Amino acid sequence: MKKPKYQLIIDFIKEKIAKGEWAIGSPIPSQRNLAKQFEVNRSTVITALEELMAEGLLEGKAGKETVVTNNTWTLMGAKYSTNWNENVTLGIHKPSVSMVQEINQAESDTNLIQLSKGELSPEMFPLEEMKFIVQKISNQLTSFGYEEPKGNLKLRQAISDYLKVRGIEASPSSILVVSGALQALHLISIGLLKRGSTVLLEMPSYLYSLTVFESAGMELQGLAMDKEGLIIDSIYLTKEKGKNILYTIPTFHNPTGALMQEKRREKLIAYCEREQLPVIEDDVYHDLWIDNPPPKPLKAMDLYGNVLYVGSLSKTLSPGLRIGWIVGSESVINRLADLKMQSDYGSSTLSQLVAAEWLSSNFYDSHLDKVREQLRVRRKVALDALDKYLSPYATWDIPKGGLFIWVKIKPEFKVKRLFEKAFSNNILLNPGSIYAEKTGQFIRISYGYASLDEIKVGIFKLSEIIKIK
Amino acid sequence: MKKPKYQLIIDFIKEKIAKGEWAIGSPIPSQRNLAKQFEVNRSTVITALEELMAEGLLEGKAGKETVVTNNTWTLMGAKYSTNWNENVTLGIHKPSVSMVQEINQAESDTNLIQLSKGELSPEMFPLEEMKFIVQKISNQLTSFGYEEPKGNLKLRQAISDYLKVRGIEASPSSILVVSGALQALHLISIGLLKRGSTVLLEMPSYLYSLTVFESAGMELQGLAMDKEGLIIDSIYLTKEKGKNILYTIPTFHNPTGALMQEKRREKLIAYCEREQLPVIEDDVYHDLWIDNPPPKPLKAMDLYGNVLYVGSLSKTLSPGLRIGWIVGSESVINRLADLKMQSDYGSSTLSQLVAAEWLSSNFYDSHLDKVREQLRVRRKVALDALDKYLSPYATWDIPKGGLFIWVKIKPEFKVKRLFEKAFSNNILLNPGSIYAEKTGQFIRISYGYASLDEIKVGIFKLSEIIKIK
Ligand SMILES: Cc1ncc(COP(=O)(O)O)c(C=O)c1O
Ligand SMILES: Cc1ncc(COP(=O)(O)O)c(C=O)c1O
Repeated sequence: MKKPKYQLIIDFIKEKIAKGEWAIGSPIPSQRNLAKQFEVNRSTVITALEELMAEGLLEGKAGKETVVTNNTWTLMGAKYSTNWNENVTLGIHKPSVSMVQEINQAESDTNLIQLSKGELSPEMFPLEEMKFIVQKISNQLTSFGYEEPKGNLKLRQAISDYLKVRGIEASPSSILVVSGALQALHLISIGLLKRGSTVLLEMPSYLYSLTVFESAGMELQGLAMDKEGLIIDSIYLTKEKGKNILYTIPTFHNPTGALMQEKRREKLIAYCEREQLPVIEDDVYHDLWIDNPPPKPLKAMDLYGNVLYVGSLSKTLSPGLRIGWIVGSESVINRLADLKMQSDYGSSTLSQLVAAEWLSSNFYDSHLDKVREQLRVRRKVALDALDKYLSPYATWDIPKGGLFIWVKIKPEFKVKRLFEKAFSNNILLNPGSIYAEKTGQFIRISYGYASLDEIKVGIFKLSEIIKIK
Repeated sequence: MKKPKYQLIIDFIKEKIAKGEWAIGSPIPSQRNLAKQFEVNRSTVITALEELMAEGLLEGKAGKETVVTNNTWTLMGAKYSTNWNENVTLGIHKPSVSMVQEINQAESDTNLIQLSKGELSPEMFPLEEMKFIVQKISNQLTSFGYEEPKGNLKLRQAISDYLKVRGIEASPSSILVVSGALQALHLISIGLLKRGSTVLLEMPSYLYSLTVFESAGMELQGLAMDKEGLIIDSIYLTKEKGKNILYTIPTFHNPTGALMQEKRREKLIAYCEREQLPVIEDDVYHDLWIDNPPPKPLKAMDLYGNVLYVGSLSKTLSPGLRIGWIVGSESVINRLADLKMQSDYGSSTLSQLVAAEWLSSNFYDSHLDKVREQLRVRRKVALDALDKYLSPYATWDIPKGGLFIWVKIKPEFKVKRLFEKAFSNNILLNPGSIYAEKTGQFIRISYGYASLDEIKVGIFKLSEIIKIK
């Protein structure tokens, strides 16, 4: 039984689309060419195309070319928007999409001076200790099956002890082990927040948190900031109770480096209790203080289980471990644990055992001492270079910890041009425009990743670029 | 400034609720007792309670006690239903909630004979090889940062090679590394499926898949099965295109052990192509064949990128590694990779490196040989015991691989009673009722986990229980 000609054309086109060779949005060959290729009349081609249009795979407008609109999977139509390309409606900003993508890709380019990356330099990776610990773990290995819903008990106990030193009393049963702080935000968004709820957050804020909240159908409302972080008076709650939540990074804020002092923390906690405004406290930079330990976390002042506290080993030890935690009242943690099981059935046992060993040995604290020492040097090099080269063109505050200096370029200089020229000179940085329109005159410079020389040279070159306008 | 008395009562109650000491649904102390405790009039107590009711934390019905209804977090009202306790409306069944919970908890009880667990026994865990590989990895360690969106390239290459042997041609760029097959289903549900879509799936099917699909707002439609798995003629598509998806476990199905033969696979693929019905093929038991290798996966016959293929190392090597994969056409994989980044920023580097080493060395294949040998013995012991003790009371088919025997108890015996008596005799099994109402006369017996003696004794005891009715 031979297939009719038009069916051959349909099959051919479907295969091209399904295999991704013809991408969505791209035009297909002209009717004339298809007719030639299949040795048929144009009318046969038209029959095939009409069928494909009816199926929603192609779209042809009068006088325009016919384009691919769909494949079987996109036909399903995701509800979770995963696409940086879509211009999702944002309460607070439209991400400068192509720039974010460009930066993401460029971050794995080892030829660039990375003033963008928010991680510790490989120089600071405690390779010998990590090898030692992984080997120790390998000697103690037993068969590993599925883990308990809240995570390995030894690790939760180690996290509990770690938190006690930082002023937070949390039993292992009120701790959930997660695969990094980002997963914490993801689980909270899909598990605890109602679609259409409003997330109040610092403007600017951690870039990926925006995507996570939005993807889960939240509205975002930006809060004004000063040197101490979010300004409480800028919180404005309209909707009925239970429809707002605050997401905040009070300690060494990403991207501004702001640190909220104790007084404001107390006021904020009192406000949130009064207004029954639940809080997600993202504290991943806590241990990266340089001058003095930061004030206690909000969670340490939280009497009513109003705060969900999020931490991680990514910024201090290794992002590749993918180990973080959520601390909250037990009923909420139980719920999130349920959801964690549904989403990935627990984090890697190997990573959990390695993390437990790090936290419960002295290795972690002595590693942190070294990291702080190096960050102090790195910050100094960056600040000296800024003073020397950029002071005519920009202003900045001295961060008391974390990885970032938030530099305000004077209004007469175009940041977009600076970013692009820097990029073509092999220097990568985060322009403020990717965070919010309002912060378009800022750039975020990380002193955590590039080498000391690169930091110096990078900042010098930035000044050269600005200078020649 | 002293707080008014009623405020003290409010604070006291809020704290009790927030800390979870007073659970949702539980009654609070009587007005009289509260008045006594705080040395105030009843009217003061009533003022406090009214305020709390207005805030939605308490509920009091006339003539009934006042109960806790909420805390700040539950007030947010999850959209993602995470609760086995909720009687979610199901297209195909209401899960026998308390039983599933009971089984889950009992699965970590080492005093029980585990005829329930769907994992390999620790006896089969390749401890020495695992130690060797972890140590090898530790020697090769470099600092590990965030991974590429689709996962470690070495691992993806190893998966690509592994799949080739099984008939699937997939380049590393069309493979996404995930934290186990369950995460694959979670990402697909929240990333590709529209709320209110219908997932067609075998009835019965893998229990957690139901929860994942439902939590993401899908409707479920059960498909009839025979010894070869789903019956194609029972697929019934009502809604418009792009609103249906098929989830199937064609190879050593959980819980029935069914194996779909090549002919039906071909018919199924042709049907799905014709109807533009996308398919999720869950193939986690593929390598656990005992008699002969199973037919090629559906994915191997898929010309149009219609099939998303899901695999994992959990059933063959170790669930604790949390390493699985999704294979699909590149555009879909890109989208899922984006979502994976949003949900946990990639899987553990350690686990990925270990998995890559397993797959790319000869260790994995020789491990599988041993596992198959042991499963053959285990299956024989289980079948012999069934023949010897249970044949008057039940019937079953011989599984050609996987971990389960699906035993049909004759209608004159109550399965609920069997489950309960077995449990009180320290034997755990999965009654068919937790999967679907229709399968209430079945039990699922795993020959993968318990020791040979336990399997024999367990099945013998089941016969004793049935016998004395
Ligand atoms: C504020 C903040 N939270 C969370 C994360 C993500 O951390 P993790 O790697 O633990 O998911 C980052 C990383 O950039 C961050 O800056
Ligand atoms: C059919 C099926 N798919 C997926 C899974 C989950 O596997 P993983 O541990 O890789 O998430 C299971 C485990 O029971 C299963 O039976």
